[in-house]
Amino acid sequence: MTINQEDDVKNDQQLHKEKMQKQKERVDAQIAKNSIERGVAILMTGNGKGKTSSAFGMVFRALGYGQKVGIVQFIKGAQESGEVNFINDHCPNADIFQMGTGFTWNTQDKAADIHASEETWKVAAKMLADASYDLVVLDELTYMIGYKYLDRSMIIDAISQRPIEQSVVVTGRGGGRELREVMDTVSDVKNIKHGYKAGIKARRGVDC
Amino acid sequence: MTINQEDDVKNDQQLHKEKMQKQKERVDAQIAKNSIERGVAILMTGNGKGKTSSAFGMVFRALGYGQKVGIVQFIKGAQESGEVNFINDHCPNADIFQMGTGFTWNTQDKAADIHASEETWKVAAKMLADASYDLVVLDELTYMIGYKYLDRSMIIDAISQRPIEQSVVVTGRGGGRELREVMDTVSDVKNIKHGYKAGIKARRGVDC
Repeated sequence: MTINQEDDVKNDQQLHKEKMQKQKERVDAQIAKNSIERGVAILMTGNGKGKTSSAFGMVFRALGYGQKVGIVQFIKGAQESGEVNFINDHCPNADIFQMGTGFTWNTQDKAADIHASEETWKVAAKMLADASYDLVVLDELTYMIGYKYLDRSMIIDAISQRPIEQSVVVTGRGGGRELREVMDTVSDVKNIKHGYKAGIKARRGVDC
Repeated sequence: MTINQEDDVKNDQQLHKEKMQKQKERVDAQIAKNSIERGVAILMTGNGKGKTSSAFGMVFRALGYGQKVGIVQFIKGAQESGEVNFINDHCPNADIFQMGTGFTWNTQDKAADIHASEETWKVAAKMLADASYDLVVLDELTYMIGYKYLDRSMIIDAISQRPIEQSVVVTGRGGGRELREVMDTVSDVKNIKHGYKAGIKARRGVDC
């Protein structure tokens, strides 16, 4: 390395350090400003892959701190899933309840679906009123609102009146403006492409 | 209920059944068409919350089927996280390696960051060449490409030449067009809103 090249490396290192120092100041300022300590309400919505798996990632995050978790899955339960297998086998600190009917296009029975969703909601409402749960996951709840199987205001009231230390994660496409408003964090998972559309079979351990 | 009202309910039920029957035909046709059975490559990108937690949701999905999982976390490891606690305590079937340097704005040392990323990549490359791993997670890998700490083609080659049965999940903002092209499934997690910006402190069990 020539002396000039050494200077270039030093300049690059120094510029990097200065840039990062400024970024650190911005990040630290935001952290210092954040003073509210309470449970958060998160909505994972949109048409892309990753909504339910994200909710379950947070489940394991919570379990890793010894927290208690409640999970209610609307629609799901008719098919096997790896994350539910794992929870049933290894996670006594997580309570899981599944509506178990499967997709509406499989049941094809609106009255039975409405009845099942109401029974499932009773379990969810109980968890949302129970401060012993640190985290409650309501997987695919948005569809119950979209299909008008469950009353939107009843759901929004239960979420907004939950214990202050409790976090909640709701997943599913849609859900509407009122639901988004009551949530602290909303991520819209957009489908850019999906292997399924390219002819790849759903894969155990990734898709189900 | 009058006879007319009963008719309305029946019509509604019948219409629902017919609509769902058609949807079932569409879904079944796509399932029948999908004949390719192999591991999938998934990219969780975008500026919203849920990318890393989604990858870890898939980790537990895979572990629920008794699969073997490799996890490499770029950047991360300087701070505690619930999902890593959980894996270290409960998941002998998952191998985890963390770069451990923390964010670039904390290290402020470009040469050391590049060295750490190269050492971390060696672990990732070994997993991507080892067919005993059913799933490999490369958390925050995209930033190594964005910062030019690691060579883009080297990464793309390793992902595309991995064992055919192995799935891989890459997370992080950006990553570029070439990376997206080699992935089967790409989800862009868009930030609609984040509690952090509203002054809520990062929450154990949800955010970290």
